[in-house]
Amino acid sequence: MAKQEDQFKNVISHAKEYGFIFQSSEIYDGLSAVYDYGQNGAELKKNIREYWWKSMVQMHENIVGIDAAIFMHPTTWKASGHVDAFNDPLIDNKDSKKRYRADVLIEDYAEKLNQKAQKEIEKARARFGEAFNEEEFVTTNARVMEYKAKQRQILERMAHSLETENLADVKALIEELEIADPETGSKNWTEVRQFNLMFGTKLGAEAANAMDLYLRPETAQGIFVNFLNVQKTGRMKIPFGIAQTGKAFRNEIVARQFIFRMREFEQMEMQFFVRPGEEMKYYEYWKETRLKWHLSLGLGKENYRFHDHEKLAHYANAAADIEFNFPFGFKELEGIHSRTDFDLKAHEQFSGKKLQYFDTELNENYVPYVVETSVGLDRMFLAVFSTALKEETLEDGSVRTVLSLPAVLAPTKAAVLPLVKKDGLPDVARKIIEDLKWDFNVAYDEKDAVGRRYRRQDALGTPFCITVDHQTLEDETVTIRHRDSMKQDRVKISELRSIINEEVSVRNWLMKM
Amino acid sequence: MAKQEDQFKNVISHAKEYGFIFQSSEIYDGLSAVYDYGQNGAELKKNIREYWWKSMVQMHENIVGIDAAIFMHPTTWKASGHVDAFNDPLIDNKDSKKRYRADVLIEDYAEKLNQKAQKEIEKARARFGEAFNEEEFVTTNARVMEYKAKQRQILERMAHSLETENLADVKALIEELEIADPETGSKNWTEVRQFNLMFGTKLGAEAANAMDLYLRPETAQGIFVNFLNVQKTGRMKIPFGIAQTGKAFRNEIVARQFIFRMREFEQMEMQFFVRPGEEMKYYEYWKETRLKWHLSLGLGKENYRFHDHEKLAHYANAAADIEFNFPFGFKELEGIHSRTDFDLKAHEQFSGKKLQYFDTELNENYVPYVVETSVGLDRMFLAVFSTALKEETLEDGSVRTVLSLPAVLAPTKAAVLPLVKKDGLPDVARKIIEDLKWDFNVAYDEKDAVGRRYRRQDALGTPFCITVDHQTLEDETVTIRHRDSMKQDRVKISELRSIINEEVSVRNWLMKM
Repeated sequence: MAKQEDQFKNVISHAKEYGFIFQSSEIYDGLSAVYDYGQNGAELKKNIREYWWKSMVQMHENIVGIDAAIFMHPTTWKASGHVDAFNDPLIDNKDSKKRYRADVLIEDYAEKLNQKAQKEIEKARARFGEAFNEEEFVTTNARVMEYKAKQRQILERMAHSLETENLADVKALIEELEIADPETGSKNWTEVRQFNLMFGTKLGAEAANAMDLYLRPETAQGIFVNFLNVQKTGRMKIPFGIAQTGKAFRNEIVARQFIFRMREFEQMEMQFFVRPGEEMKYYEYWKETRLKWHLSLGLGKENYRFHDHEKLAHYANAAADIEFNFPFGFKELEGIHSRTDFDLKAHEQFSGKKLQYFDTELNENYVPYVVETSVGLDRMFLAVFSTALKEETLEDGSVRTVLSLPAVLAPTKAAVLPLVKKDGLPDVARKIIEDLKWDFNVAYDEKDAVGRRYRRQDALGTPFCITVDHQTLEDETVTIRHRDSMKQDRVKISELRSIINEEVSVRNWLMKM
Repeated sequence: MAKQEDQFKNVISHAKEYGFIFQSSEIYDGLSAVYDYGQNGAELKKNIREYWWKSMVQMHENIVGIDAAIFMHPTTWKASGHVDAFNDPLIDNKDSKKRYRADVLIEDYAEKLNQKAQKEIEKARARFGEAFNEEEFVTTNARVMEYKAKQRQILERMAHSLETENLADVKALIEELEIADPETGSKNWTEVRQFNLMFGTKLGAEAANAMDLYLRPETAQGIFVNFLNVQKTGRMKIPFGIAQTGKAFRNEIVARQFIFRMREFEQMEMQFFVRPGEEMKYYEYWKETRLKWHLSLGLGKENYRFHDHEKLAHYANAAADIEFNFPFGFKELEGIHSRTDFDLKAHEQFSGKKLQYFDTELNENYVPYVVETSVGLDRMFLAVFSTALKEETLEDGSVRTVLSLPAVLAPTKAAVLPLVKKDGLPDVARKIIEDLKWDFNVAYDEKDAVGRRYRRQDALGTPFCITVDHQTLEDETVTIRHRDSMKQDRVKISELRSIINEEVSVRNWLMKM
């Protein structure tokens, strides 16, 4: 765990030092849970988005992409259930004036019981084979069972109280368990109340006729309200999908873990419209296909696992997460949800418009079922970046920091380095750049010894370093160094374009799926 | 004018009918001045953004891109002047309850005087060479001069009143001119008051400690606050640029002209940091370079013109617009502004942090000057789309609708059409798609007669139609039809990829600059 925490700290500081991620408005001491992507982060993020878009939209004849606005008619969020049910239960400590999520306070308490039980179990296990009193064994086991039972009981009671909107009982539970403010120890709590996570704003001048708007908390609804427009003008036949990437906003009370949970974030979502009754087939298809997409990036099969939801959201009849091994453990990276016809039916009801599809094969009208795939772009960024960042001990005992990004996603594809700053080598290097820049992001670097420049490009994740030396002047060859293997080959300048393209093209990476 | 209006109506209806642009939340009767991009619009918009990004970032060694959040620390907008000065003067009609921009009411009145003068001039000119009474000439000329003087006088008084925040005089002017509500004719007005155009929201739960935030009204400030982070981590040397594309929001009271002026829109901006005193050189350079970029798309040189600002914003020492000939006349498409050191100095003052650059050549610290290029992505979309949409009368007298989009921007690069739906032709067509889809957006279409399918692809702006016929089965050739010339060539299937690539690659289009 300590090692994981160190790795996470390294990720955050490397991201800043090398221009990937800056705290938002840092000169004004930052804005909590909001981040800016720097010159290298912006390219990495863009490349991830593009890799997703190409695999989903360009490669699928029956999937098209749209780009709906962040602002939507407010009734959208009535229909989707967000106005009524997109809440966190909050509680304030009267002494410290600190605000907490009541459910998180209770979950943390339950987790401590779990940890106590685990400790007892480990202690008992360690003594196994030693002299061990039978009575002591029985007592210990009973205590462990009791901890576990109590933990379960607490979580069940909380879940029930939240579901039935019995917030008084959530407060009562906190008081019964004598949960204290983690920072100050005070147990002087306010009532628990629901807090809606949508950001509000007002459209139009601030008079009677201003309209209350929300910043969308998910991009999916932009697809649902456009379902018929796209189906009709695009003459789409079921099954078909509508994809979208874009910003969404959630007023998280406790936002944390760097870019994992931000107040402003970007989603990459696809809604796949199918015949009612066929949704489970496509649900399985998309679970498998999306995992394959992740695996194509080569971050390691062992870093992914499925988590099938037992408790389902009100709109779903099946749901699974693809979890990734982040620096803070396995957490949701992507969700695949069988959303039934909940959303389209709700929009039919609230808008009074039919949202039906005429199936020419069945000769029948129906509201389609929907299977959704939804991945957080910022989470993808964190998954890729944190896995790629490595400290390697080399043969000579020295340590190098290398960012082994999948070459298709790397911000800069090649750095061109004149061995020395004279003898016309910089001119040749620039000529190479002039040729390559039409196809790739390339960088020029002439400062410091070439070994140090290699290290700098390693830390930036640049897959290739191209070095121009005196031999280049004679035979038009250069050395090309591979970031991960550090192997160097001597190649002709005229071959560079195709060598680089082979390793970085989206085409070749998608073929691994 | 009537013709232009018709053209504009055609643009709007074609954009909807072919899946380019839908009204936002249309099933809820729409959201004023907000639009969604449909399956073809999303691709066109993405292609424009990419064309800009490649030309600005990938092609320039000294320009990097970032992706800053929409949410910024609120002091940012104090420093930039937006909190205090980003206002529209509003006035309400007490009878109709309609709200107007006071300055627009006055400008419209002044414009009418101008039109009157123009009409008199045209009338007089038409009569030139005929019998023409000298006295009549003198009277007419005096009247024209009077109109023009009055127009100038009105605009000057309004400008002065707005600058000195004398809103009472703006109201007085409206009353003196007897300006009436354009819809109802009522002259019963409220006072004029300032209305800030930024959308506000609140970060954190709705308690005392919630923070008032704004949705950014321009992307530029995200670049300014990150200036030193990027310069240091990217080891950038002046002159250098930081580019960004992203959403911005303005609570326009009177938003109109389709996607030309929206409440939510996307900017493509670049801030170029230079030595103080060298800004005019780069200002001229960027005016020229940006115009070249526009011209590379081939929409016609006659559709662009420069408009140099006489009245400068508080932060600028030179400014020009690249205006485009939209369906409603020449209007701003892009702005090139010499912003001096206004923004960086303001952020120094409000943040208490130094935002200086150490120039190793001069051995001197200074706050750089900034030259900005700022183009509206949605306006670019409208410029491209409205110019591309044409009705052509063919040799046989029939009319076709064709969307002659620059091939590099076209949403779909090629459509593959089996001549008939049998004899294995659809299978061959699908095989061609399977091969091409790795590199291009391609579509399949087998419905209706092939001529009708050509027309459909013409209307979508698809540069190539590839038709598979019975000869294909024998010799592996297909016909490839060019959208604009309607010329058809017989080519080998194996040549398709390079033929298409030649016409659509960003590389080849940028080479035209």
